[in-house]
Amino acid sequence: MLETIEQTKTKKTDAAEELNAMRDELINLANAAKANKIPVIITIDGWSAAGKGSQIAKLIKFMDPRFYNVEAIRTPNVVELRKPWLHRYWQKLPKQGEFLILDGSWFRDTVNAYMYGEISKTEYKKRIDDINTFERQLADDGYLIIKFFLHITKDEQQERLKKLVSSEITKWRVDDHDIINSDNYSAFFKKYDKTLCRTNTSYAPWHIVPANNKVTAQFSIMMTVTNAIKAACAAKENGGKFEEKPEFPVIDYKPEKFKTVKTRKLKEIDMDKSLTEEEYARKLDKYQEKLFKLQNICYQRKIPVIIAYEGWDAGGKGGNIKRVASALDPRGYEVKPIAAPEPSELARHYLWRFWTRLENDGHFTIFDRTWYGRVMVEPIEKITPQERADMAYQEINEFEKQLTDWGAVVIKFWINIDKEEQYRRFKERENTPAKQWKITDEDWRNREKWDEYETAVDRMVKLTSTEFAPWTIVEGNDKKYARIKALKTICKRIEERLGI
Amino acid sequence: MLETIEQTKTKKTDAAEELNAMRDELINLANAAKANKIPVIITIDGWSAAGKGSQIAKLIKFMDPRFYNVEAIRTPNVVELRKPWLHRYWQKLPKQGEFLILDGSWFRDTVNAYMYGEISKTEYKKRIDDINTFERQLADDGYLIIKFFLHITKDEQQERLKKLVSSEITKWRVDDHDIINSDNYSAFFKKYDKTLCRTNTSYAPWHIVPANNKVTAQFSIMMTVTNAIKAACAAKENGGKFEEKPEFPVIDYKPEKFKTVKTRKLKEIDMDKSLTEEEYARKLDKYQEKLFKLQNICYQRKIPVIIAYEGWDAGGKGGNIKRVASALDPRGYEVKPIAAPEPSELARHYLWRFWTRLENDGHFTIFDRTWYGRVMVEPIEKITPQERADMAYQEINEFEKQLTDWGAVVIKFWINIDKEEQYRRFKERENTPAKQWKITDEDWRNREKWDEYETAVDRMVKLTSTEFAPWTIVEGNDKKYARIKALKTICKRIEERLGI
Repeated sequence: MLETIEQTKTKKTDAAEELNAMRDELINLANAAKANKIPVIITIDGWSAAGKGSQIAKLIKFMDPRFYNVEAIRTPNVVELRKPWLHRYWQKLPKQGEFLILDGSWFRDTVNAYMYGEISKTEYKKRIDDINTFERQLADDGYLIIKFFLHITKDEQQERLKKLVSSEITKWRVDDHDIINSDNYSAFFKKYDKTLCRTNTSYAPWHIVPANNKVTAQFSIMMTVTNAIKAACAAKENGGKFEEKPEFPVIDYKPEKFKTVKTRKLKEIDMDKSLTEEEYARKLDKYQEKLFKLQNICYQRKIPVIIAYEGWDAGGKGGNIKRVASALDPRGYEVKPIAAPEPSELARHYLWRFWTRLENDGHFTIFDRTWYGRVMVEPIEKITPQERADMAYQEINEFEKQLTDWGAVVIKFWINIDKEEQYRRFKERENTPAKQWKITDEDWRNREKWDEYETAVDRMVKLTSTEFAPWTIVEGNDKKYARIKALKTICKRIEERLGI
Repeated sequence: MLETIEQTKTKKTDAAEELNAMRDELINLANAAKANKIPVIITIDGWSAAGKGSQIAKLIKFMDPRFYNVEAIRTPNVVELRKPWLHRYWQKLPKQGEFLILDGSWFRDTVNAYMYGEISKTEYKKRIDDINTFERQLADDGYLIIKFFLHITKDEQQERLKKLVSSEITKWRVDDHDIINSDNYSAFFKKYDKTLCRTNTSYAPWHIVPANNKVTAQFSIMMTVTNAIKAACAAKENGGKFEEKPEFPVIDYKPEKFKTVKTRKLKEIDMDKSLTEEEYARKLDKYQEKLFKLQNICYQRKIPVIIAYEGWDAGGKGGNIKRVASALDPRGYEVKPIAAPEPSELARHYLWRFWTRLENDGHFTIFDRTWYGRVMVEPIEKITPQERADMAYQEINEFEKQLTDWGAVVIKFWINIDKEEQYRRFKERENTPAKQWKITDEDWRNREKWDEYETAVDRMVKLTSTEFAPWTIVEGNDKKYARIKALKTICKRIEERLGI
């Protein structure tokens, strides 16, 4: 894409006036984006010394600073390195109606990591997929993503770097990476170009900005941003979906199709499995000891373990989690109970609150209820339209794939009980003073929708039992059996991952 | 305190049974703490190899893992070092009804930093004050803080370390610090002892646990925790305040008294100040340029700048902030609009949401509305009882002192307009379609309480205009004048800090 760009040398004489007009428009559009609850992400990538920082400063100069956040993306720090690579971008997602403006993005992150030998060619390619997936997930959720690459010629870059270095005030701004970037201009040119092509999608197309001339560059950025927001607002007001007109041929992006393993329907599960007290006591000791040892290895080898618990109300999730947790060194895990989302969570992509709850590598993160609420309670309770919820099967598989690529063992349990057993447990809770807080009207209401839930669970298990993150349906009428099965499954999955 | 501790050598024969009974009790008490919305912090400090980790594991073994979080406190990482030293503890504060259990705490953090020469004697002393203040603020807010120090003798420590090192499986758990701790047992003994004495307060007394014998240590920890929670719940149910019975004489802790500077009442402010368009344009350029340069220096010298905006509705905070923000490199600041707290924020100390919003050192954090809501809107709207809100003057001064100690320049603006000007602006907003979203019924309701607010503001300005974080009342009837005054004040305060 880069070779077709011509650097405009002529200065626009009427630029100042036009820019002022566009600025006023931008302020109004920012308000319109707020009113329409459109979250906007603007990324500014480009060559070292291409003027990314100063273009951002010009872009936002008259916007309301309460509604944007500018972040400079640098080499990931020690804390960021202990999370999936996209984690730091997820973490910064703007709320609906707000702007996130990035000086450098996942694009530069990926090209640099490859060029500096920090990631292999295979990892580089995987990251390209991750980027396309990430941007598609956001676009599908209504995020407007506007991506810029500021292009300058080699001569221009060298001149600018020389000028920066020659002044006491600015020389600290030039670092080793800038010099390497410039010394290897043609190698970077090739890699930038390829990466631009590979991430030029219909839902997040690139805007290549000739940036030898700062005024025309500013003009071009401002124009693109205003047009995109205007069109996105218009589309939203008309209930339609918005896509920017791409400047270059887009790639034919197709979401990855994940192979799933054979699963059973809940109806097909043998619910009579049980253990005697003696078997239970023996096996509990055995698997808790084993798990403790495995945790030690995971900690040392920095392998993250993600355990997701779903199941019927009163299925016994709490007690099950307790037996897993009490096997572990408490400094190495955290249990995340998932309740109804808070306002700041509702204002972002639904996966945001799970991304931001991930513990460091080497640690266990245990979710008590999970991202699967998206395809169960949300459509059934009409919190999310069925069509939007249906998109989550793919999104969730992608999410779990990215966790797996990070190195995580992803283990998912559906704790299953039958309808009679649930009734018995509800009644017992009602009749036991110490347990009454555990049973609410909502539990009874959910119970009335048993069949709807069962259909949703069957579908979820079928569609999201990927090879890397299969569901384990746990026969839960007997709590002892269920606990041992969960412990055993966790040990087995970790051993597979460790190759022992 | 340490020299009076005798290590019990006798093993309790009936320990197992008693421990089981206590465990059951602990589970019930954890539920009671949840029901009573008491947040609990348990810190386990002590010698290297004193068994902190395994004691924690035993303590929580049967608790519900959804309601506790165990954190191991290590040497602060690069990200933590860019925040005030207590930031990482604030960040981890448990919600009401939840448990935070720390393996190592601000106590060890402080002793180690001093012993390893990372902080000076003066800084060490300042940290002792910070600890006592921090714990008092939490205790005043209803947090139950239970602090343990696990004490082992020199011989016992050396034996344990030797054993750990001799096994392939455990030797990685012994690090340089452990060896240094042991090699310098008597020096650490002295420093531990002094620090224990200096942080032994009535609201957060120490429990010294003789830990040569692991069973009696466990017994003692369990007993202390159950007793403390039981008493705290009883006190809460009776509407009283709870304090643990101290085992050692407590220090006579008195909150620091801060000198305040002379201030004026709002009534005494000359509201006729204004600037012509020409003066405004000239000064805006001048001070924005100056501020940009100062930001550059702050960034390089890692000086944080905290700017707090308060003021009457329609006072012009937004436009004022915009002029400050647009002077700055956007990668170096963030504006934090403060709205009504979310559930997760309401469930913690009210300062939590401000601590967790602090940007890194070298950055500007601009708050649009602040922690001062505590002494204005909260008591006036009966969200917080007046007596509790009144405690905030001291708490806020302490907070701002800690920010100043961190190195921050703390600048606070009250944007003042008179009642007629507010009426004019409200009406203008109502009559301008593009501004209608800015005016709500709540604004009119607040206006009716003008006098109450004025009294609260006068009091707030008087009581929290400390020498290190004085209020600047900005005459805001003329927006131009107000903007220049804010910019000028920011520049002046930063220059003072830089000594230029």
